[in-house]
Amino acid sequence: MLKKFFTPQKIAVIGASGDPNKLGYDVINNLLRFEFPGSIHPVSKSYNEILGVTCHVSIEDLPDDIDLALVIIPAKAVPGVVEKCGEKGIRNIIVMSGGFSETGEQGRMLEEKLKETAQRLGVRVIGPNCIGVIDTHTPLNTTFIIGMPEKGEIGFISQSGALVVAVIDWAAGSGIGFSRMASLGNQMDITETDMIDEIGQHRETKVITAYAEGITDGRKFLQKATEISLSKPFMILKGGQSDKGALAVSSHTGALSGSNDAYNAAFRKAGILKAENMEVMFDSARALAWQPLPKGNRVAVLTNAGGLAILTVDAIEKNGMEIAPLTEETKSFLKTRLPAAASVNNPVDVLAGSGPAVYGLALDALLADETVDAVVVIQVPQDWFLPSGLAEVVAETSKLHRKPVLTSIMGKESSKEALEILNKRRIPNVPFPERTAAILQYMVERKDWLDLINEEQVTAFDDMTETPQKPSGADELAASQQWEALAGAYDIPLPEQDKASDADEAVGLSEKIGYPVVMKMISEKFTHKSDVGGIKMGLNNEDDVRNAWNEITAAASDAGAELQGVLIQKMLTGGQEVIIGIKQDPQFGPLIVFGTGGTEVELYKDIETAIAPLNEGEARRLIASTIAGRKLKGWRNLPPADMDAVVDILIKMGNLAAGHPEIQEMEMNPLYVLEQGKGTYAIDIRGALRSS
Amino acid sequence: MLKKFFTPQKIAVIGASGDPNKLGYDVINNLLRFEFPGSIHPVSKSYNEILGVTCHVSIEDLPDDIDLALVIIPAKAVPGVVEKCGEKGIRNIIVMSGGFSETGEQGRMLEEKLKETAQRLGVRVIGPNCIGVIDTHTPLNTTFIIGMPEKGEIGFISQSGALVVAVIDWAAGSGIGFSRMASLGNQMDITETDMIDEIGQHRETKVITAYAEGITDGRKFLQKATEISLSKPFMILKGGQSDKGALAVSSHTGALSGSNDAYNAAFRKAGILKAENMEVMFDSARALAWQPLPKGNRVAVLTNAGGLAILTVDAIEKNGMEIAPLTEETKSFLKTRLPAAASVNNPVDVLAGSGPAVYGLALDALLADETVDAVVVIQVPQDWFLPSGLAEVVAETSKLHRKPVLTSIMGKESSKEALEILNKRRIPNVPFPERTAAILQYMVERKDWLDLINEEQVTAFDDMTETPQKPSGADELAASQQWEALAGAYDIPLPEQDKASDADEAVGLSEKIGYPVVMKMISEKFTHKSDVGGIKMGLNNEDDVRNAWNEITAAASDAGAELQGVLIQKMLTGGQEVIIGIKQDPQFGPLIVFGTGGTEVELYKDIETAIAPLNEGEARRLIASTIAGRKLKGWRNLPPADMDAVVDILIKMGNLAAGHPEIQEMEMNPLYVLEQGKGTYAIDIRGALRSS
Repeated sequence: MLKKFFTPQKIAVIGASGDPNKLGYDVINNLLRFEFPGSIHPVSKSYNEILGVTCHVSIEDLPDDIDLALVIIPAKAVPGVVEKCGEKGIRNIIVMSGGFSETGEQGRMLEEKLKETAQRLGVRVIGPNCIGVIDTHTPLNTTFIIGMPEKGEIGFISQSGALVVAVIDWAAGSGIGFSRMASLGNQMDITETDMIDEIGQHRETKVITAYAEGITDGRKFLQKATEISLSKPFMILKGGQSDKGALAVSSHTGALSGSNDAYNAAFRKAGILKAENMEVMFDSARALAWQPLPKGNRVAVLTNAGGLAILTVDAIEKNGMEIAPLTEETKSFLKTRLPAAASVNNPVDVLAGSGPAVYGLALDALLADETVDAVVVIQVPQDWFLPSGLAEVVAETSKLHRKPVLTSIMGKESSKEALEILNKRRIPNVPFPERTAAILQYMVERKDWLDLINEEQVTAFDDMTETPQKPSGADELAASQQWEALAGAYDIPLPEQDKASDADEAVGLSEKIGYPVVMKMISEKFTHKSDVGGIKMGLNNEDDVRNAWNEITAAASDAGAELQGVLIQKMLTGGQEVIIGIKQDPQFGPLIVFGTGGTEVELYKDIETAIAPLNEGEARRLIASTIAGRKLKGWRNLPPADMDAVVDILIKMGNLAAGHPEIQEMEMNPLYVLEQGKGTYAIDIRGALRSS
Repeated sequence: MLKKFFTPQKIAVIGASGDPNKLGYDVINNLLRFEFPGSIHPVSKSYNEILGVTCHVSIEDLPDDIDLALVIIPAKAVPGVVEKCGEKGIRNIIVMSGGFSETGEQGRMLEEKLKETAQRLGVRVIGPNCIGVIDTHTPLNTTFIIGMPEKGEIGFISQSGALVVAVIDWAAGSGIGFSRMASLGNQMDITETDMIDEIGQHRETKVITAYAEGITDGRKFLQKATEISLSKPFMILKGGQSDKGALAVSSHTGALSGSNDAYNAAFRKAGILKAENMEVMFDSARALAWQPLPKGNRVAVLTNAGGLAILTVDAIEKNGMEIAPLTEETKSFLKTRLPAAASVNNPVDVLAGSGPAVYGLALDALLADETVDAVVVIQVPQDWFLPSGLAEVVAETSKLHRKPVLTSIMGKESSKEALEILNKRRIPNVPFPERTAAILQYMVERKDWLDLINEEQVTAFDDMTETPQKPSGADELAASQQWEALAGAYDIPLPEQDKASDADEAVGLSEKIGYPVVMKMISEKFTHKSDVGGIKMGLNNEDDVRNAWNEITAAASDAGAELQGVLIQKMLTGGQEVIIGIKQDPQFGPLIVFGTGGTEVELYKDIETAIAPLNEGEARRLIASTIAGRKLKGWRNLPPADMDAVVDILIKMGNLAAGHPEIQEMEMNPLYVLEQGKGTYAIDIRGALRSS
C-alpha cells in the first residue's frame, strides 16, 4: 500500500530551487545523481528549469498522474500545499519540512491541521520533520543528504534522520548494503508499524533493521512484527533505554518511552532481535541476510593464531554459546592433515605455516562434523600467501554445507581483495574476530524463536486482540477493587481466612480455621505491613492470638493508622514464596511479572517480565528465567515445589490481566507454593486501578 | 635493566639469510626498512653480505660490544648458540625460534637446557617462540612481520605474537600510535613482570597495555603493577576468561590460567584496568594518554543529532556514569546562543543548522560548568561547513580547560582532514559516539583508584609480602586442622558450644549454655549436614533436645554415616547471615570471599572476591559490593547489622589467610551478624589444607 513511496514513476518536488544552497536543490540533485529512472517534476515560480529539469509553475500545473510528492517548504505553508496536492489527486507525500510537533505547542497545532487535511483527502504522509526515503533497487533517493548506500538486502527504518545520515556514512565501503531506508520523522500518519509492513513485503529486503525511540500502538506493532519475523529477521536498536535517555527521548520527538523491561518482553515475544548497538546491528543483519541459521549453539573456531582464538572463545562463551566438542573422527582426520604441533581440539589452530589448502580441508571437516553448528575462521596476515586465495576457499567450502560461516580475515591493506571476494560471495567478515560472537548469538536467538513459534509456544498476537473470556461477575469485582475476590473469580486459590473485629472473634476464627494461624493488620495506610509490626506469624493457641491482637492494635496506634480489623489466615509451612504481578505498560498493555517474592523483592531484583496473556510454554519459560524458578525445581534440602500449579496461576493471571485493561497494577506477594501436587496459595493480594 | 632490548647500538642477527623466503632475511630487511640507527651484524656462513650489510662468518667473529642478539635458527641449535653469545659477552638475546615448551615434553627439556645455559652465563632472554620487540622512538623493529606501528605513547606487551601482528594491522591509519611493543613468547626468562617494569620506566610511554593469558608469580607481578599504576595507566586484555578459553590457554602456551574472579580482584587491587576487548583497550589507552582524567563521573553530551545523543546517553548510563545536570547559569547562557528549538538540557542539541562557532561557545560553557566532569562532542556530517573547522575549535577550546573531551565527528570521507587535526591535537575521536562511554568509564575507574590509594584505602603489595603477625600457636592449629580453634586464635568469636556424646550429656550442656539451642551432627562424611537432617534448630527444653538426639542419630544411621558426636550450640536469633571464605588462588595467593551465605549461596551467587590481606577500606568496599552488604545496612523491617564487626572479621580472616598459605580453603557459612553493636558469631567453620 505504501509501495509508491519507494517505486514512484513521477515525482513532484514542491519547494524546488535552483540555488545550490537550498535543500530544494539538493533533493533534485540527489534524484538525478542516484539515477532515479522515472520523471521529476519540480514546482517553482522562480526557476524555469533546475539542473536541466523543466519546472512547473504550480501544483495545478503538474501532470495528473504524479504518484509521489516531496515537500520542502516552510512549515506554515505545508497544510495548504498538501490540500492542493490532495485535490490534484496525489496520494503519497513526504513532508521533509521541520517546525511541527517537535518544536512545541504551536507546531503541534500546525501538525494537527496537517493531519486533518491529509485524512480528509485520503493522502498518506511520511513525516513531517524527516529526510525521506531511499530505495537502492528502484533506485530512488528523495533525501538532501550526501550519500547513497550500497545496494543490498537490509532495510532500515529510523525515527531519526541523523541516524540515516550516520549509517550511510559508516557503512560506506564496509560491504554492508541496503535495500530500503526510511526516515519517519514525527510519524504523524505513517508509523513504524505501517513501514515494517511495507518493507516486510519487499522482495529484495531480506532483513529489517530499525532505530526506534518509542513505539506507537504497541500491540498492533507487535502483531505486525510477529508476522514479519516469521519470514524475515527483524532487529531494533532502541534509543532511550536508561532513565536519562528516556528523558532525552521525550524532549526529542515527543514519543512516550516505555520501560526497558516491557520492551525486552515485547521484543522477545514478537521475535524481534534487540540490537546492542549500531555496529552490532548491521554486522548481524548482514550475516542474517547472507548465511543460513545455525541448528544449535555449538561453534567451532578455525585459526592460525592462538591468542585471537582464545579471545574469540571467551566472547562466544560470554554470549551464552558453546564450543563444539568435535567428534573423534574429525580430530583423527585433522591429525593427518595439520602440522604435528597444531591443535586438533576446538579451537583448531592450523599454525602460522598453513595456507588456503589446509584451511579448506579443516573447514570442510568442521562443517561436516555433527557437533558443529557454525564455524568462525580467523586469519592473521601471513606474507607468504595472498588472503584472497583463502577467501575463495572459505567461500566455496562453506557453500558445500548448510551451516553459517563467519570470517575474520585480518589485514587492512593486504586483505582488500579478499574482502571483496567475501562480500561478493556473501561471507560476512569482521575486522576483529571477537565480534563474531554477538553476531552468532543473534542468529541462535532467531533460530530458537522460530522453533518456539513452530511448536506453538508463543501466543500469536492475533489471539491477543481478542479478550480472554472473563468469569461472570469479574467486571463488577474489578470495578469494586476486591482484589481477592477477583483472583477467586479466576480460580486462583486463597488460604482459608477471615476478618476479625475484636480479640474474641480472632480467637473464634482461629479455632475454626485451625492452628497455626497468621494475623495481619487491615489498614489502608500501609502497603508494607510487616515494616510496622502489623503481621504476626506462627500463632499456636488462644494466648498467642490474644497477645498478637494486642501487639497489632498497639502497632497500628503507634503508627497512627486506623485499624480496620485483623485478618486471620491459615499459616502455611514448608513451601516457597514467589511474586506474581500484573503491570499495565503504556505502550504494550498488560505485562506479567514473576520472580523472587517476599520482603526482599526489591533487593535481589530477581524479576522477569512477559507480555500477557501467556500460554503454557511462555509461562514455563518465564519461570525458568528466574532464580525463583530454579529454586522451585528443588534446591538442596528444599523439595521440588508444585511447578504445574505455578504455571496454572501464571496463565490465569495472564487472562485476568488481558481481560481487565482497567487494572494498573496487581500483585500477589507472595504466592505460596507447596510441594509437588499440593498446590499454591495467594497470600497477599494488592492492586490499583488506572487513574484515567 | 632491559633497556638495551629497545635501544641497542649494535645488533647481531644469528640465522641471517640472503634468501627473501627466509625469516632471517625479513628481520634484516625490517631493521633497515624501519631505519634502525645503529649497526647491524648478520652472522652467516653462506652470504658475504645481505641487503648491503656485511656478514660475519661466526659469533666469534662479531665485534666485542654487541648489545643485542636476535636468534632465528632451528630450536636444537639454540642452546649452543646462546652459549657462544654468552661467551662473547652478549648479555641480551631475543630467541624468536619456536619448537620449545609450546610443543611438548621434548621441547620443554630443550627449553630447560636453554634456561640453564642463559642463567649460567648471565644472559637475559626474551622468548623463545616470540616475534621480538619494536621501539618507534629508537626506532627499532626486530620482527619479521610486515608493518611498523605509528609513533605514539602506548606500550603494548603481548604473550601472543599474532596479537602484535593483528594490532599493528588494525591500528594502521586509526590515529593510535605506539611507543614500544614486546612479544614475550614462552617467557622462559623475561616475564611480563620484568617487562612492565622496563616499559613502565620508559619516558615516551604514557600508557601500558598488555595481552596476557596467564600471569607468572602473581604477587610479584601485582606489586610491580601497583607501582606502575601510580604513575601510568595500565590496561590488560585477559585471554582465557571462560572455562573453555582457559582450556585453550593451557594447550596454547602452557601457562596456568587462574580463575576469573581472582583476576578481577587482583586487577582491581593493583589499579589495572581490565579491557573488555582489543578495540576498547586501544581506544581507551589513547584517551588516557591524550586527555586529563575526569574529576567525577558526570558527562555532558554536545550534539547536532538527537538520536545519536540518546544512544550515547544510554551507553553512558549503562557504564555506570551520570548525565551532568548543568547549572542554571549554563542553561541560560546556552539559551542566548543556541537556536530557539535547541535543547539546552543535557544532552545539548545545537541542531543541524549550527556550525563550529556555536559548538565552540557551547563546549566552552559546558567545560566551565562545575557539574560537568567530561564532554562528548558529536557531529553528524553537514554539507554546509567543513568538519576540519569544528575539529580546530573543539581542540582549541578543550585546551582552555582541564577536563577530558572526546569526539565523534562522523563522516568517513568528509572528515579525514578533521581526524588528522584531532589526532595531532590529541583529541580522541571514535567513529560511533556510543563508544565514548566505555572509554570514559575506564578514565573514571582510574581516577577512583588513584583517589583510593591516595587515601591509603588499598593495602600496598609491599606490605603483603611480609606475613602478618600470627597469634602464638596458630601454626600448630592450622597444621592440625582445628578450624574453630584457629579462628579463635585470631579472635574470631564463636557461639557458646560444646560436644555431646550421648543424650544425657546433650541435655546437660544445653542447660549450661541456656535454651534455645541448636544441635548439629558431627560426622566427616557430610559437608552439607542440613541436607540429611543433621541439624535441629530452636530446641527449647529437655524434651526437644532428647527428640533431636534421636532424630540426628537416626539420620546418621540412615545416611550410613558414623556419628562422631553432636554439637550443642547457643541458638542465635534476629541476625543476618553472610558467608566469609578464604580461597588459595594458584596465581595470586590467598583470596577473601564475601557475600550472601546460608544454603542459597550457590543459587544467588552474590559473592565478591578480594586479595588478602585487607585493610579497612578494602573490607568495607568488599562488603558494599554485594547484596548481602546492602542488607547489612538495614533493609525494610531488618534493623542495621553490626557492620563494624563484619569489617573486623574480614580483616582478621585476611590476616589469617595471608599468614597461612598452607590453607587451601576455609569458610564460615554463616557468619551470624547481630544488630549494631552486638557483634558477630562464626557458626559453621570448615576448611581444607593444600594437598601438596
